[in-house]
Amino acid sequence: MRIDRKKTYAFHNNVDFCVGTGRMGLALTKEYQDELRVVQEEIGFKHIRGHGLFCEAMGIYEEINWRGETSFCYNFTYLDRVMDSYIEQGIEPFLELGFMPGALGSGTQTIFYWKGNVTPPKSYKKWADLVKTTLTHLCDRYGRDRVVNWPVEVWNEPNLPGFWKDADMQEYFKLFKVTFQAVKKVDPRFQVGGPAVCGVKDEFWIRSFLDFCRQEKLSPDFVTRHHYTTEEPDRKGHFTYQKLSDPFLGFDNLMTSRVAIDSYKEFKGLPIHITEFNTSYTPTNPIHDTNENAAYIAHQLSHLGDVNESYSYWTFGDVFEEAGIPHTQFYGGFGLVAAGCVRKPTFWTFAFFKRLQELQDLSGRCIYKDEECVIVESADKKELRGILWNRGKKTLKKDFTIPVKDKKLTFIRHTVDPVTTNPLKLWHDLGEPAAPSKAQLDLLKRADAPLISSSILDASGDVELNFSVRGFGVEYFTISACNMTPDEGYDYSKVVKGS
Amino acid sequence: MRIDRKKTYAFHNNVDFCVGTGRMGLALTKEYQDELRVVQEEIGFKHIRGHGLFCEAMGIYEEINWRGETSFCYNFTYLDRVMDSYIEQGIEPFLELGFMPGALGSGTQTIFYWKGNVTPPKSYKKWADLVKTTLTHLCDRYGRDRVVNWPVEVWNEPNLPGFWKDADMQEYFKLFKVTFQAVKKVDPRFQVGGPAVCGVKDEFWIRSFLDFCRQEKLSPDFVTRHHYTTEEPDRKGHFTYQKLSDPFLGFDNLMTSRVAIDSYKEFKGLPIHITEFNTSYTPTNPIHDTNENAAYIAHQLSHLGDVNESYSYWTFGDVFEEAGIPHTQFYGGFGLVAAGCVRKPTFWTFAFFKRLQELQDLSGRCIYKDEECVIVESADKKELRGILWNRGKKTLKKDFTIPVKDKKLTFIRHTVDPVTTNPLKLWHDLGEPAAPSKAQLDLLKRADAPLISSSILDASGDVELNFSVRGFGVEYFTISACNMTPDEGYDYSKVVKGS
Amino acid sequence: MRIDRKKTYAFHNNVDFCVGTGRMGLALTKEYQDELRVVQEEIGFKHIRGHGLFCEAMGIYEEINWRGETSFCYNFTYLDRVMDSYIEQGIEPFLELGFMPGALGSGTQTIFYWKGNVTPPKSYKKWADLVKTTLTHLCDRYGRDRVVNWPVEVWNEPNLPGFWKDADMQEYFKLFKVTFQAVKKVDPRFQVGGPAVCGVKDEFWIRSFLDFCRQEKLSPDFVTRHHYTTEEPDRKGHFTYQKLSDPFLGFDNLMTSRVAIDSYKEFKGLPIHITEFNTSYTPTNPIHDTNENAAYIAHQLSHLGDVNESYSYWTFGDVFEEAGIPHTQFYGGFGLVAAGCVRKPTFWTFAFFKRLQELQDLSGRCIYKDEECVIVESADKKELRGILWNRGKKTLKKDFTIPVKDKKLTFIRHTVDPVTTNPLKLWHDLGEPAAPSKAQLDLLKRADAPLISSSILDASGDVELNFSVRGFGVEYFTISACNMTPDEGYDYSKVVKGS
Amino acid sequence: MRIDRKKTYAFHNNVDFCVGTGRMGLALTKEYQDELRVVQEEIGFKHIRGHGLFCEAMGIYEEINWRGETSFCYNFTYLDRVMDSYIEQGIEPFLELGFMPGALGSGTQTIFYWKGNVTPPKSYKKWADLVKTTLTHLCDRYGRDRVVNWPVEVWNEPNLPGFWKDADMQEYFKLFKVTFQAVKKVDPRFQVGGPAVCGVKDEFWIRSFLDFCRQEKLSPDFVTRHHYTTEEPDRKGHFTYQKLSDPFLGFDNLMTSRVAIDSYKEFKGLPIHITEFNTSYTPTNPIHDTNENAAYIAHQLSHLGDVNESYSYWTFGDVFEEAGIPHTQFYGGFGLVAAGCVRKPTFWTFAFFKRLQELQDLSGRCIYKDEECVIVESADKKELRGILWNRGKKTLKKDFTIPVKDKKLTFIRHTVDPVTTNPLKLWHDLGEPAAPSKAQLDLLKRADAPLISSSILDASGDVELNFSVRGFGVEYFTISACNMTPDEGYDYSKVVKGS
Repeated sequence: MRIDRKKTYAFHNNVDFCVGTGRMGLALTKEYQDELRVVQEEIGFKHIRGHGLFCEAMGIYEEINWRGETSFCYNFTYLDRVMDSYIEQGIEPFLELGFMPGALGSGTQTIFYWKGNVTPPKSYKKWADLVKTTLTHLCDRYGRDRVVNWPVEVWNEPNLPGFWKDADMQEYFKLFKVTFQAVKKVDPRFQVGGPAVCGVKDEFWIRSFLDFCRQEKLSPDFVTRHHYTTEEPDRKGHFTYQKLSDPFLGFDNLMTSRVAIDSYKEFKGLPIHITEFNTSYTPTNPIHDTNENAAYIAHQLSHLGDVNESYSYWTFGDVFEEAGIPHTQFYGGFGLVAAGCVRKPTFWTFAFFKRLQELQDLSGRCIYKDEECVIVESADKKELRGILWNRGKKTLKKDFTIPVKDKKLTFIRHTVDPVTTNPLKLWHDLGEPAAPSKAQLDLLKRADAPLISSSILDASGDVELNFSVRGFGVEYFTISACNMTPDEGYDYSKVVKGS
Repeated sequence: MRIDRKKTYAFHNNVDFCVGTGRMGLALTKEYQDELRVVQEEIGFKHIRGHGLFCEAMGIYEEINWRGETSFCYNFTYLDRVMDSYIEQGIEPFLELGFMPGALGSGTQTIFYWKGNVTPPKSYKKWADLVKTTLTHLCDRYGRDRVVNWPVEVWNEPNLPGFWKDADMQEYFKLFKVTFQAVKKVDPRFQVGGPAVCGVKDEFWIRSFLDFCRQEKLSPDFVTRHHYTTEEPDRKGHFTYQKLSDPFLGFDNLMTSRVAIDSYKEFKGLPIHITEFNTSYTPTNPIHDTNENAAYIAHQLSHLGDVNESYSYWTFGDVFEEAGIPHTQFYGGFGLVAAGCVRKPTFWTFAFFKRLQELQDLSGRCIYKDEECVIVESADKKELRGILWNRGKKTLKKDFTIPVKDKKLTFIRHTVDPVTTNPLKLWHDLGEPAAPSKAQLDLLKRADAPLISSSILDASGDVELNFSVRGFGVEYFTISACNMTPDEGYDYSKVVKGS
Repeated sequence: MRIDRKKTYAFHNNVDFCVGTGRMGLALTKEYQDELRVVQEEIGFKHIRGHGLFCEAMGIYEEINWRGETSFCYNFTYLDRVMDSYIEQGIEPFLELGFMPGALGSGTQTIFYWKGNVTPPKSYKKWADLVKTTLTHLCDRYGRDRVVNWPVEVWNEPNLPGFWKDADMQEYFKLFKVTFQAVKKVDPRFQVGGPAVCGVKDEFWIRSFLDFCRQEKLSPDFVTRHHYTTEEPDRKGHFTYQKLSDPFLGFDNLMTSRVAIDSYKEFKGLPIHITEFNTSYTPTNPIHDTNENAAYIAHQLSHLGDVNESYSYWTFGDVFEEAGIPHTQFYGGFGLVAAGCVRKPTFWTFAFFKRLQELQDLSGRCIYKDEECVIVESADKKELRGILWNRGKKTLKKDFTIPVKDKKLTFIRHTVDPVTTNPLKLWHDLGEPAAPSKAQLDLLKRADAPLISSSILDASGDVELNFSVRGFGVEYFTISACNMTPDEGYDYSKVVKGS
Repeated sequence: MRIDRKKTYAFHNNVDFCVGTGRMGLALTKEYQDELRVVQEEIGFKHIRGHGLFCEAMGIYEEINWRGETSFCYNFTYLDRVMDSYIEQGIEPFLELGFMPGALGSGTQTIFYWKGNVTPPKSYKKWADLVKTTLTHLCDRYGRDRVVNWPVEVWNEPNLPGFWKDADMQEYFKLFKVTFQAVKKVDPRFQVGGPAVCGVKDEFWIRSFLDFCRQEKLSPDFVTRHHYTTEEPDRKGHFTYQKLSDPFLGFDNLMTSRVAIDSYKEFKGLPIHITEFNTSYTPTNPIHDTNENAAYIAHQLSHLGDVNESYSYWTFGDVFEEAGIPHTQFYGGFGLVAAGCVRKPTFWTFAFFKRLQELQDLSGRCIYKDEECVIVESADKKELRGILWNRGKKTLKKDFTIPVKDKKLTFIRHTVDPVTTNPLKLWHDLGEPAAPSKAQLDLLKRADAPLISSSILDASGDVELNFSVRGFGVEYFTISACNMTPDEGYDYSKVVKGS
């Protein structure tokens, strides 16, 4: 295939905007911070979003009974500790306001191993005060001009009865209104959105939500939803297994949100943030640890910006407790990184898309995109960066002819496939140790990086690229002019004697 | 080939005993310490040997002229700083006493860009005082019981006129005697040796040296010599190119030293330390940076212990100034590690032999060795570790049948060859930048490690191993029992669906 | 006062044997590990003891209901992570077996903000299995020979109904017996003890415990108890205030345990470990943050070894959640170190006693001790190390005459008192910020170390020391021979010109 | 004294603009980088200036003789390594072009232990090429827009025959012209200046230099000179001793340069950079290590901006070889920091002036200055920062009445005086060990920081400050509103019980 470098392809790449996380209290742990460091050093997300801001483990809202009287107070010790660590790591929150402090809940229903209370507040006034006090505290500590750029989302997946008592839509709308107004009172510059639904009656919820906003004259700043792409789970012991679904079904579903929103005159074009996405939505599905996941997600990343402002992979790391404390090294967790900071194949998919985004952030253009590949050119046209992925088991052959100006080009390839970069298989071959020894962990970490290959391409107007991507492989490549600057007397051909 | 696990092969593996270094003053630099850290973390040498202890850059001996009078003093500021850093890095010196402090020299002849004075002392008494004061200082600071374990070698390559004025043999013997007696006076436990010759009239020098010792009733604790295995250099600009010589010629030459020593009743069996070895002896021969070097050195390491106590690779890193300050990233330096801590292929040869030595240090046995391979078994027979190397350009096929007790075995391979681990080629393909940018250096460091592959082998009494080692490849493998400890419900076959 | 250096004073200094900690799950947090690092670098405790090993936050024991059936499993992910971190920090557990996993409890009674279940097991067999499986796992991962040296204590303060349902003594004895036998079954070398009582009917409990052991023919390896030295608390908001009690009342109480044990022929001389001690037993008593506490504890440390094998300060750091999540920087927590790794005055008391213990570990002797001071001499008599403390508000004057051999002595003093080392006051003067800014925290950390003073003492057979210790001050001093080794021409008197 | 907060005092504080360094080659060493890190973390200089850019240790210019022919080449390996390290440490060069590469010199005269060639070039064309190639290389590697902001100075102290052969003024002017034009050819935005004279015939040199520039129609961008304030040295062994001179003599001398420059219409107001200053100009004068130096330099820093753009303390650290390799821990080196990163008292003088400059950089104003004190107010008037110094031996009393708005103020003092912060004395009392042991070095580092004291001041319109500064003391203080934010129930008065 011949690339026409004058043509521009639509490719809204916002891969680094946001990433998901286990409950906020886990951010206090060392393993969490270690995993986050690995992610930030290579990928560098701007925002982080997860549950549990107001849960007991964070201790923000407390009621005290003393000699028959009940008083309450706020406690920001852990919140500050978490936010300090985020900022030190170069990441800032995408604030999800939830769940309910136990002491403020109207009921006792909880979700997850860590028991997040999912009932409406016993007092909406106290809830509004909690929201305002918390945001004001953050503005005081981290600077108002910075904090107003932290997007605010109201609750999580209220369309599921597990996450919001009875999935009571009208109660959620009430919560949204009260919260929206509370946030805007702190500072009208805050961007606030909802309804954070997952793919269950999502279109109905979004339309109802916008009807409610229209009726109440609320102007949400964005709409949020989730996006998972697997079929029904099959459980076995601690694990679930699911088939990956046809990605285009998912893209169609995403389009329904766009269409719904754009059908409202006053909400037309409102940004949609996918505040969670992944293949499987269960935290113990081994698919997350595989090369197959990496290739499937590459395809996702090439599409998710089509009608959405951003999309937040659920989650950056494997420190996660929704289904209990992980039992083993690779437990099918959502993370890009596994315990001990072992990078999974999907980690590299994000790293590679970030490399493309870097060029795009500096006015680079997408010069080619199809269902297996995307190529971006730097603004000065001196460098090309591309990614190929192979969602199937069979080797993918892909040839390009690209017009270039230079006679010699440096061609670098980073290969992530089941042969080159497969820590899951290595761990399996080691006998699947629940807690690898230091030596085993060291070995896993040596086996988690791409294979890098290089060559010098001769070009005469055009350069030919012939790719062969193994099943479930992802490949990142760069092409740039090769300017030889040899030292006096250095002769590579003498060095390697034709090998 | 069928391995007979009851058989034991002679394989004196002392790979970690000592490594070479550029002049001691360079140990003050940060780049030197960074490179040494990389080497120590992976390989962990016990001793380090190099030139320049008494040269001006270390400033140990100083003469001061003040108002017409000359006095002298000792200054151990830099010596202490270097020794502190060595000990912090877990390495201790193999002391080479030389060269001459400029102020103490009988002449002005120097060697190298850094101008080491190579003339006999103007006063043997002052020289002896210098030696005694220095060793006493080291004993005081680092503990006598520790320091007496640092071997002491008298001078370097006095058989070359560049290193010792006129290659004056009798003068060297005088130096040896004075030095030997000075060291023993500080503590008779010190092990002292010479004559540190390279391969020029080496047999004649060694016999003459022993004749002299016999005559003077000196009992050296060991004999030292060097070992390089390339033919005459062809120079081009800053670089030299040499053909690798037939390794067996070198081994024969080493044997001549052994035979010579053993022909003296009183010196029979005296240890021989090869205090320098490498392929080429020129510090700007690109061979050092290649995969070919890695394979050739693997073969060397399988042999050098045959008649020698130890063998010290010249050198651990590329911070080196004998032929001037390096001009470019890969300049054909001796180092296992290049500038910016990029590990060369030969680095891994040492790392792999160290893995074997670890088993041998714990009473493991060599169960097989030939000219392309060595295999060691752990004392409990539960683990095998082996190395294969291919000194030729064509792929080497090698099959083993090994009797085992377990039904399932974990088989791990670490491959270092021109395709998997070739930072030199990557640098070449980048255009041979003299000073890589941060991004280029980062890329080189990502491309300097072995490819790791794993599998589970089924065995029935015997296990079959089929190796295919690329030209100039080195391969390290381990085999151990695979005890599956899967978590409840974990099913790898479901995870990877036959991929 | 004239010191007689031939006299030896009884001073069993075991200050570094063990230290307390908040619940084990907190060891996963970064702040905890950071605080522990500061403690270990300066003091270096050998063991660490705290609650919560078997609580939900550690997730070791789990019951799963799936389609109507209940199964259970063990999960050591977090336990391994905590133990790995301890070992990395050079500390090993003093294992307290407790509290009850929720799923294994016979009831729902809990203690603390973090809800530790304090009911007897619903099945003693399952409890014994849990104990055995956990210890066996630790032996497998960390090496049996190492792990059997970790002392084992059964439960915590069963003599309080808050810690053990109804403070049911017979039920505790049953628990002890089952646990003791389970542990010994894993390895008879394990040292196991109880009953871990606090000072409520402690003598009665200890005698009853030993009666029970005699009757059941159990041979506990040691007896454990706690030791706090404040009067009844006065609560105000989040805080409690208590008067320090007369220390000798406490020492008398400790003696009752010794006497009780020694009254049993078969238990006579059994070691007593004080597995918790501090001034106040409430986690929000500001006394812990003061200089007064430092001086009081110094006195304690000079006595606690009198009849006890060891004594474990409760706790090393301020990461602690028993009374809820701390609300502010200095909240009266038990820690030697406050949030952000600010060292409290009492930190230095331990650091100073450790300096004495270092000499004692190398056969140094206590040459003087009274109620305000202790002095230890090194085995070679070349160095003296001493500590003075002032439990009162008024300045303490203390003069010594010490016979010495050297003419000149280096005298170094480290002063910790309300003027030199008082981060609490600085924080107060800053306005008591709940979450100090980075700049404020930096300032606090600059103000948390001793003032160091030095001088050269002239001696003529005797040396005179005149101390003046401020109210609530602690002072550590060393005296050693001053051997001047000036550089050529260096003249300090010219440098400072009499200043 | 009553401060009038409406009044503004002239105080051009540019303390962080530049600092001096030992020869550039020393920047390769680890100790140098460690010391620089300590300086940058606390003070954070913008520029660094020293000698030796073109000397052999940097190896930039090289001539090679090969088979009778001489060729030359440039080598930027070490230059890049040094510049990379500077930029990593947040500091950028103030480029001093000199001395002469040995191979390019017209003679062999050298200066210093490290033998810098101080002769004019044998070819001015080759010199100009060297300058252009070096600057162009820096522009390529570090970005032209950044590098043109690195000031360029031509040579060092040509008015001394030791630094420039025969102190030949006309030859220097030739060098200046050639160099000036070469630099401007690379980029006219470069700021270039000279003549870098020390205080020997300085006024004559500066006037002659400007005459020359006028005549040749050269427009230098700034004038440079040095400034030392001690009398003639008295040498003793390795050391020199000098009396501090009256500072006002020095300020008068500085004024002569200002007057001279301003007398030229075309050069009027040209910035003057003091590219070196210190008390003594000898690198082995123990005054540099004293508290007296800290106090004297504080006074200097309050004045040096009066008629000069900047002033660069000579030098940041004690890695320095002009008079040979340092023999001992405190050797009277120029550094703010001694070996092992021990901070000298003068270090804090700079740190304190930097704290004032921070306010001034944000539009703070100097509200008071005299010969013992300077006070700066923040732009929002909420904070005051001041420094007092005492150049004499007797205690200095100083009282201020300052009008304030707040009722309660936090008053923090950082004291550096012979009692609180005197590592030199501690080292002396330890016996002046040339190479302190790890324990001794640790002790020195614990004794090198200010004593911090705090209090809350009550004010009623005015606040009273009563200072008492010990002889040779420097004191930094801050005053800001104290807003009490106590936690519920926290009562400091109960905590400390009046202590």
